[in-house]
Amino acid sequence: MRILVLHGPNLNLLGKREPEIYGTLSLEDINGALEALGAEFEAVLGFFQSNSEGALVDAIQQAPEKYDGILINPAAYTHTSVALRDAMAAIGLPFVEVHLSNIHRREEFRHHSYLAPLALGQICGFGLDSYLLGLRALFNHIKN
Amino acid sequence: MRILVLHGPNLNLLGKREPEIYGTLSLEDINGALEALGAEFEAVLGFFQSNSEGALVDAIQQAPEKYDGILINPAAYTHTSVALRDAMAAIGLPFVEVHLSNIHRREEFRHHSYLAPLALGQICGFGLDSYLLGLRALFNHIKN
Amino acid sequence: MRILVLHGPNLNLLGKREPEIYGTLSLEDINGALEALGAEFEAVLGFFQSNSEGALVDAIQQAPEKYDGILINPAAYTHTSVALRDAMAAIGLPFVEVHLSNIHRREEFRHHSYLAPLALGQICGFGLDSYLLGLRALFNHIKN
Amino acid sequence: MRILVLHGPNLNLLGKREPEIYGTLSLEDINGALEALGAEFEAVLGFFQSNSEGALVDAIQQAPEKYDGILINPAAYTHTSVALRDAMAAIGLPFVEVHLSNIHRREEFRHHSYLAPLALGQICGFGLDSYLLGLRALFNHIKN
Amino acid sequence: MRILVLHGPNLNLLGKREPEIYGTLSLEDINGALEALGAEFEAVLGFFQSNSEGALVDAIQQAPEKYDGILINPAAYTHTSVALRDAMAAIGLPFVEVHLSNIHRREEFRHHSYLAPLALGQICGFGLDSYLLGLRALFNHIKN
Amino acid sequence: MRILVLHGPNLNLLGKREPEIYGTLSLEDINGALEALGAEFEAVLGFFQSNSEGALVDAIQQAPEKYDGILINPAAYTHTSVALRDAMAAIGLPFVEVHLSNIHRREEFRHHSYLAPLALGQICGFGLDSYLLGLRALFNHIKN
Amino acid sequence: MRILVLHGPNLNLLGKREPEIYGTLSLEDINGALEALGAEFEAVLGFFQSNSEGALVDAIQQAPEKYDGILINPAAYTHTSVALRDAMAAIGLPFVEVHLSNIHRREEFRHHSYLAPLALGQICGFGLDSYLLGLRALFNHIKN
Amino acid sequence: MRILVLHGPNLNLLGKREPEIYGTLSLEDINGALEALGAEFEAVLGFFQSNSEGALVDAIQQAPEKYDGILINPAAYTHTSVALRDAMAAIGLPFVEVHLSNIHRREEFRHHSYLAPLALGQICGFGLDSYLLGLRALFNHIKN
Amino acid sequence: MRILVLHGPNLNLLGKREPEIYGTLSLEDINGALEALGAEFEAVLGFFQSNSEGALVDAIQQAPEKYDGILINPAAYTHTSVALRDAMAAIGLPFVEVHLSNIHRREEFRHHSYLAPLALGQICGFGLDSYLLGLRALFNHIKN
Amino acid sequence: MRILVLHGPNLNLLGKREPEIYGTLSLEDINGALEALGAEFEAVLGFFQSNSEGALVDAIQQAPEKYDGILINPAAYTHTSVALRDAMAAIGLPFVEVHLSNIHRREEFRHHSYLAPLALGQICGFGLDSYLLGLRALFNHIKN
Amino acid sequence: MRILVLHGPNLNLLGKREPEIYGTLSLEDINGALEALGAEFEAVLGFFQSNSEGALVDAIQQAPEKYDGILINPAAYTHTSVALRDAMAAIGLPFVEVHLSNIHRREEFRHHSYLAPLALGQICGFGLDSYLLGLRALFNHIKN
Amino acid sequence: MRILVLHGPNLNLLGKREPEIYGTLSLEDINGALEALGAEFEAVLGFFQSNSEGALVDAIQQAPEKYDGILINPAAYTHTSVALRDAMAAIGLPFVEVHLSNIHRREEFRHHSYLAPLALGQICGFGLDSYLLGLRALFNHIKN
Repeated sequence: MRILVLHGPNLNLLGKREPEIYGTLSLEDINGALEALGAEFEAVLGFFQSNSEGALVDAIQQAPEKYDGILINPAAYTHTSVALRDAMAAIGLPFVEVHLSNIHRREEFRHHSYLAPLALGQICGFGLDSYLLGLRALFNHIKN
Repeated sequence: MRILVLHGPNLNLLGKREPEIYGTLSLEDINGALEALGAEFEAVLGFFQSNSEGALVDAIQQAPEKYDGILINPAAYTHTSVALRDAMAAIGLPFVEVHLSNIHRREEFRHHSYLAPLALGQICGFGLDSYLLGLRALFNHIKN
Repeated sequence: MRILVLHGPNLNLLGKREPEIYGTLSLEDINGALEALGAEFEAVLGFFQSNSEGALVDAIQQAPEKYDGILINPAAYTHTSVALRDAMAAIGLPFVEVHLSNIHRREEFRHHSYLAPLALGQICGFGLDSYLLGLRALFNHIKN
Repeated sequence: MRILVLHGPNLNLLGKREPEIYGTLSLEDINGALEALGAEFEAVLGFFQSNSEGALVDAIQQAPEKYDGILINPAAYTHTSVALRDAMAAIGLPFVEVHLSNIHRREEFRHHSYLAPLALGQICGFGLDSYLLGLRALFNHIKN
Repeated sequence: MRILVLHGPNLNLLGKREPEIYGTLSLEDINGALEALGAEFEAVLGFFQSNSEGALVDAIQQAPEKYDGILINPAAYTHTSVALRDAMAAIGLPFVEVHLSNIHRREEFRHHSYLAPLALGQICGFGLDSYLLGLRALFNHIKN
Repeated sequence: MRILVLHGPNLNLLGKREPEIYGTLSLEDINGALEALGAEFEAVLGFFQSNSEGALVDAIQQAPEKYDGILINPAAYTHTSVALRDAMAAIGLPFVEVHLSNIHRREEFRHHSYLAPLALGQICGFGLDSYLLGLRALFNHIKN
Repeated sequence: MRILVLHGPNLNLLGKREPEIYGTLSLEDINGALEALGAEFEAVLGFFQSNSEGALVDAIQQAPEKYDGILINPAAYTHTSVALRDAMAAIGLPFVEVHLSNIHRREEFRHHSYLAPLALGQICGFGLDSYLLGLRALFNHIKN
Repeated sequence: MRILVLHGPNLNLLGKREPEIYGTLSLEDINGALEALGAEFEAVLGFFQSNSEGALVDAIQQAPEKYDGILINPAAYTHTSVALRDAMAAIGLPFVEVHLSNIHRREEFRHHSYLAPLALGQICGFGLDSYLLGLRALFNHIKN
Repeated sequence: MRILVLHGPNLNLLGKREPEIYGTLSLEDINGALEALGAEFEAVLGFFQSNSEGALVDAIQQAPEKYDGILINPAAYTHTSVALRDAMAAIGLPFVEVHLSNIHRREEFRHHSYLAPLALGQICGFGLDSYLLGLRALFNHIKN
Repeated sequence: MRILVLHGPNLNLLGKREPEIYGTLSLEDINGALEALGAEFEAVLGFFQSNSEGALVDAIQQAPEKYDGILINPAAYTHTSVALRDAMAAIGLPFVEVHLSNIHRREEFRHHSYLAPLALGQICGFGLDSYLLGLRALFNHIKN
Repeated sequence: MRILVLHGPNLNLLGKREPEIYGTLSLEDINGALEALGAEFEAVLGFFQSNSEGALVDAIQQAPEKYDGILINPAAYTHTSVALRDAMAAIGLPFVEVHLSNIHRREEFRHHSYLAPLALGQICGFGLDSYLLGLRALFNHIKN
Repeated sequence: MRILVLHGPNLNLLGKREPEIYGTLSLEDINGALEALGAEFEAVLGFFQSNSEGALVDAIQQAPEKYDGILINPAAYTHTSVALRDAMAAIGLPFVEVHLSNIHRREEFRHHSYLAPLALGQICGFGLDSYLLGLRALFNHIKN
C-alpha cells in the first residue's frame, strides 16, 4: 500500500513557531512518526509540503499514478480552496483530512472545510496523533 | 486508566437500521471492539447509552468519580444540546467527540457541534474506526 | 392495521390551558375521537404522551415491533429535536405530523420542523381535525 | 354549502408530467374525487384552474358572492404571490391551503407560504388525499 | 398635462373589504377625488386597475403615447414585481408611488419596494390623501 | 391648529451644500413656504432645527403643551435614533415623517426608519414638496 | 427541428427604450436574426412574447406538442417566477436561458435565476449574440 | 404565598465546578438563602432541580396546584427549550427568570432566551443575588 | 457608599405617558423610593437624567470622583450607544443596567444591549422594582 | 485577431476524470476545436492552463502585449480569486467567462463569480460548446 | 494651511483610563505632538473634543470657514453616527479618519465605519502615531 | 534596522494600468520613495512582489532571518488568503498593512482583511503616502 502525505501552507514551520497552538514537533518529526507507523502496516509513504495552492493541486493530480490514498492537512487552504476540493473530486482517491489543532475552538472561518464533504472523514485536535490516527483510518479503509 | 464511553440517542439501534449510513455493526460490536482495544492499553472501560439528554448529563456529572476521560458520540444532541456542553465544561474531564458518519457530507444543521470547542478533538466519518481512533487519542492524551 | 399516536410535551394539558390557542378538548377527547375513527377503519390504535424527548425517542424506536405507522404531534420538539428526526429516520415507519394550531401564524421559530421532511406529510391548523385527518392520511397510505 | 376549489399554475398538467412528484391522477380525477366527497357532505363545488396570478386573484375576489369557503392549491404562487394573500385577506372567506407534494422535502424556497398564515390550516404531502382532507377540514369548519 | 393613475391588485375591492386597514372609500371615490383635484390643475387623468401583473406592465408600456407621468399604487406587486420596475425603467416617465396604509407598520415583506428607487418619491400612510398628495407632487414635478 | 416643524441634523446647511441631492432652497426658504401654506390652513407653525439628538428629543417632549401635531424630517437620526422613536411614542401626538431625497435610491442603511412605524405616514423624494405635502397630510388628519 | 423562442416582459420595447443597457435592435430584428440562423440549421422557429407570467406558462405548457426545445429570455420573471420554473420542469423539454445584458453587473436581485438550474445552460451579456449563441447551443444539444 | 424554585441542568454541580463563572456557593447554600429570605416574606418555598427537560416540564405543569409563582434558572435549557416555554405559557403562573452569570458577556448563543418573553422579567449576573432579587421581584408582583 | 443613578432619554416623562408600558410612577417617585432604600443601606445617592447621549457620557466620566458605582437605565441608548459603553469601560466603576419593561417581549432591536456585557448584571421587567433590585445588587457587590 | 485561451485549475484532467460532469473531451480536444473555429475567423489563438492562481495572474498581465481578448474558464478560481479579477480589471482587455458545467445546478458556492461582473458575458452549461460559443461572442465583440 | 483636529467621545479620558488599549498619553500630549508636527509643516491647528454627537456635527459644519481639512478620531461615533457622515458629506472638506487602537482586532461592531467611505483614508492601530501619520497624509493631500 | 516590503498580486502593473484608482506611480517609484525615506531612518529595505500566494508565504516565512519587520500591501490576497495570515502569525514579526486606495469606498468584499487583526495597524487611501506612512509607523514601533 502506498500513501501520499500532503502538508499545506506554513506547516514547514512546525516546531519552530507558535508551539502553544501546534506543539513542538517539527514536520520531519511528524513524517518520521508516520513512516514508522506506515512500516508497521507495510505501507510506503510519500511526503510533500508546499505553501502554494497550485503546487498542492499538481501533487494531488499526480497521486493516482503512484498512490492508493492521501492523508492531507490542508492547513489554511482548508477554508479557502475550491481548487483543492476539485482536484480531490477529480482523482477520486480515498483521502483523510487532518488538523493538528481543534479547528472548532478557533476563529469562525476555520470551522468550515471545502474538502471535508469529499473526505472519508476528518480528524482534528490531537497534534501529531491527528496524523497517526488519520493514517490508521486511511489504511483500514483501503485494506477493506 | 478508566474511560467512560457515552453513546447518544438512537445509537442503540446501530446495525439494525440505516446500515447504508451507519454500517452493520451493532452497539455491542462497537463496545466489544473498544473493550478489546482498551485491554491492549490496560484501560478499563464503562459504557452508557441513552436516548435522554438528561440521563446523559447525569452520566457526565458522575464520571469524575470513576473515570479519567470520556469518549462520546453525542449523536443528535451534538447539534442541539447546550446542557451536554455545560456538563462537560463543569466536570473538566478530557473528552473526545466521535461520529460514525462524515457529518460534513450531511444536512447543514449537522455541521455544527456544541461540544466540539470543548473537546480535545473531533473524529468523524470512519464508522467503528471513529470510536477506536478516538479511544487511542484519549488514551494518549491522558497518559501524557 | 395498528397505528401509534404520539403526543409531545405539554399536550397532556390540552383542554385545561390556553383554549384560545389549542381549543377546549382534552387529550382524552382527542384519543377517544381517534379511536372511534380508527374503529371505522378497523385499525387498532396505541397512545403515548410524554414531556420527555428521550421517552418519545424510546417510544418511536419500539414502534416497529407493534405498529404499522405513527401519527405524531411533536409539539415543542418539532422545532428543536434532531433526536426525534433521527429516530424516525432509523425505524423507517411511515408517519404523519400534525399540529392543532396553524404554526405559520405563530412565532417564526415554529415555522420550521425537523421532522416534516421525513414525514409523509404535515397537517396543521384544524384542532382535533388535524389529528383525524392525519389518521385518515396515514391509514390510506398504509392500506395502499 | 358551496365551496370553490382553486388550482394554481401548472396543475392543469397533472397526471401528464412528473408523476414521480405529483402522482398519476389528472386534475379531472382530482376534481371528480372532490365532487364525490362533496356530494357526501351535500356540498356544491366550483372549480377553477389558472396559470395566471391575476386570474386567480379575480376568482378569489368573486368567490364571496357564490361560495362559503375556498380550497386552494396555490402551487408556485404559494411562494411568490402577495397578491393572492391580499385577496384572501380582503374577502375574508375561510380557506384551506393544500399541496400534493411534501413541500418541506423540496427546495428551500418552497418551505415558505405567503398564504398559510391566513389559512385555517395547511395540508401537504398526501397527493389526492391532501385535497380530500382539506375539503373535510373546510367543510367541518364552515358547518360549525 | 395628462396623468395615468394605476391601481394594482385588489384595489378594486376598496371600501368593500378591510376598512380598518384601507378606509371606507371605494376606488371610484378615489378616482373621483383625483379627477376633481386634477381639474384644479387643468390636468387630464386616465385610470386603470388590474389584478394582473402583465396587464399593468402593458398599461405602463403604452403610457408614453398618451401621458406625461404616472401615479401608481402597485399594492401587492410593490414587493414582488421586477417586471413593473423594468417597465417603469424602460419608459422613463416620471412616476410617484403611493400606498394607502403605512407599509412600515405592517409585515416585514411590505417594507421593501422594487419600484421606489426609480420613482420620484414614495408616499404612504394617508389613505385617500396619499393619492391626492402624490398627484400634487407629480404635477409639480412635470410642470417644472 | 398649531404644528411643530422639526428639522434634524445638517438640515441647517440646506441650500449651501450638496444641491444635487437636496436642492438649492435654504431651510429658511422651506420654513417660509411652510408658513405660507400653514397660513392658508389657518395653522400656526413653530420651527426647530438641531444637530443634537437630545435637543430634538427635548423638543418632541415639550410639543404636547403647545402643538397638535409634528412634521419631522429626522435626517440622519431617522436611521439611528431609538430615542426619537421613544419620544414620539411617549407623547402620542400625530406626526408625519418627510425626507427631501428619495431614501430608497440611496445607501442601504437609509432604507430603514426607526420612526416610520409610529408615523401617520412617510413622504420622501420631492424636495420642498415633501414638506408641503406632509403639512397637508398632517393638517387633514388633525382636522378630521 | 422546431424551436420555440420565448421573450419575457418588456422585451417588446427593445430598441425603443434604454439602448445603453439593451442595445438598439428591436425584438423583430432579434427574431429575424434568429430565423436566419435557424434557416442555416434547417430549424423552424416559433416566437412568442408576453408581459404576462401566466401567458408564458401557457406557452411553455403547449410547447411539447409542436417544439423540440425552447430558447427563453425570461427577463424580469427570471428572478421572481417559480411558476415558469415549474412549467419547464413539468414539460421536460431542453431549454437554454439567455439575457441581453450581463446580469452579474447589475442589481444583486438579478444575479439569481429560478430557471437556470433546470436549463441546459445560461448565456448572458452579449446582446443579440446571447440569443444567437443560445440557439446554437440548443440546436447542437438536440441534434446529438 | 407559595413559590416554586426550579433549577435547570448542571446546577446541582454548583460550588463544585467552575467557581470562576458560577461562584463557590452550592445549590443547597442558594436554596438555604432563598428559604431564609422567603421566611422574611412569610412565603413557603419548594425546590426542584433536574438535568432532564421533560422532568422540568412536568414540574412546571404541576406547579399551579401548589404554587403561586415560579422562580426559575433554566440554565442551558434557556437557549434550547421550546418545551419549557410552552409549559410556562400553558400554566400561566407568574415567573421570574434568573441567571447566576451575566449571559450577555458569554457566547452568542447564550444571549437568547426562549422563556424571557413570557417571564415577568429577567435578572442575570449577580450570582446568588440573582436568585434573591428574583424572589423579591416575584413576591412583590404576586402580593400586588 | 455613594451611588450615581443615571436615567436615559425620555425617562423624565415617566408617569405622564404610556403607563401601560412603563407604569404610573414618575421619575421623582422612583428617585424617592431609591433614596429611601439607599438610606437603609447608609448609601448616598446622586441622580441625573438626560435626553442627550453626550451629557450622559459626561456624567459617567465624572462619576469616579464622587461615586463608588452606577445604577443606570440607559433607555433608548441601550441599543444604539457605543459611546456610553466606552465611557463605562473607561471609568471602570461597577454598574448595573436596569429596564422598567421586559425588553425581551418588545421589538427585536430592544433585545440587544451595548452596555450589558460590561455591567455586573442586567435586570428588566419589574417596573420600579427593577431599580430597587438593581440598587441592592450594586450595593452588595460594592460592599464585598 | 489574436485571442488568449486560459484554462484554470484541474482542467488539465479533462476527459480523464469525472466525465459525468465535464464530458469526455480532453483539454487538447477543446483546444483543437477552438483552433479550428478560430481558423474560420482568421483568428490566432494562444493557450495556457495552470493550477496556480499566480501563474494565471501572470498570464493575464502579459496578455495585452500579444492578444486582443481573453477567453477564460477560471474553474475553481471563479469563486475564490480576487487576484484574477484585479488582473482583468488592470489590463482592460475584453474577456468572456465560460464554464463546461451548469454552475447554477451545483453547490451554492459555485453560483458566485468574482470575474463575471467585469466580463463581456458569461456562458455555462454546454460543455465544449461553452468554449466555442464564448469564442464567437468574443470574436464578434472585438470585430465591432 | 489650517487644520481642525476633532476628537470624539471619551477621548478626553486618554491617558487616565484603559492604558492597555489606548496608551498612556493624554489628549493634551496628543494635541501637543500634533501642534509640533504642524509647526514643521507651517500649518495652524485647531482642536475640539466633545462627547456630544451634535456638538461634533456643529464643529464640522463650521469648519469650512476656518479650516482646509479635518483630522478626526470619531471614536464610538465611527460606528453609530450617520449624522457625522452627513456633515462631512455636506461640507466637502478633505478629512482623514484615525484610530488609536487596531479596530480590526476588537469587537465585530468596531470593524465598520460610517465615515471611512467619505474620508481620504483611514489609519488605525498606531496610538499617537495614528494621529501624526494622519496629519501628514492630510497635509500632503491639501498641499497637492 | 531592516524592513521587508511585500507587494501582493497585480501591484507590478502600478502606473501602467487603472491610474484613476491607483495613481500614476510605478512600483519602482514607490520602492524608490520608500528607500529614500528608509535612508533617513538609517533603515535597510528589501523588496519583493509576487502574484503568487505561495511565493508571498515563502517570503514571509524567510523574513525573520533577515528583517525586523514587514510592510505589506497584500492587495487581492487581503480578502482571500488565510495562508498569508497564518504565515504572519507563525513568524511573529511586527507588520503594517497598507493599501493605495480607500478600501472602504470600494466593493463590499474589500472591506474585510484576514491580515489586519494581526497587524500593528492598517493604513489605506493615500496612494504612495500609504506606504510611506506605514514605513514610519513600523519604524517607530520597532525602535521603541
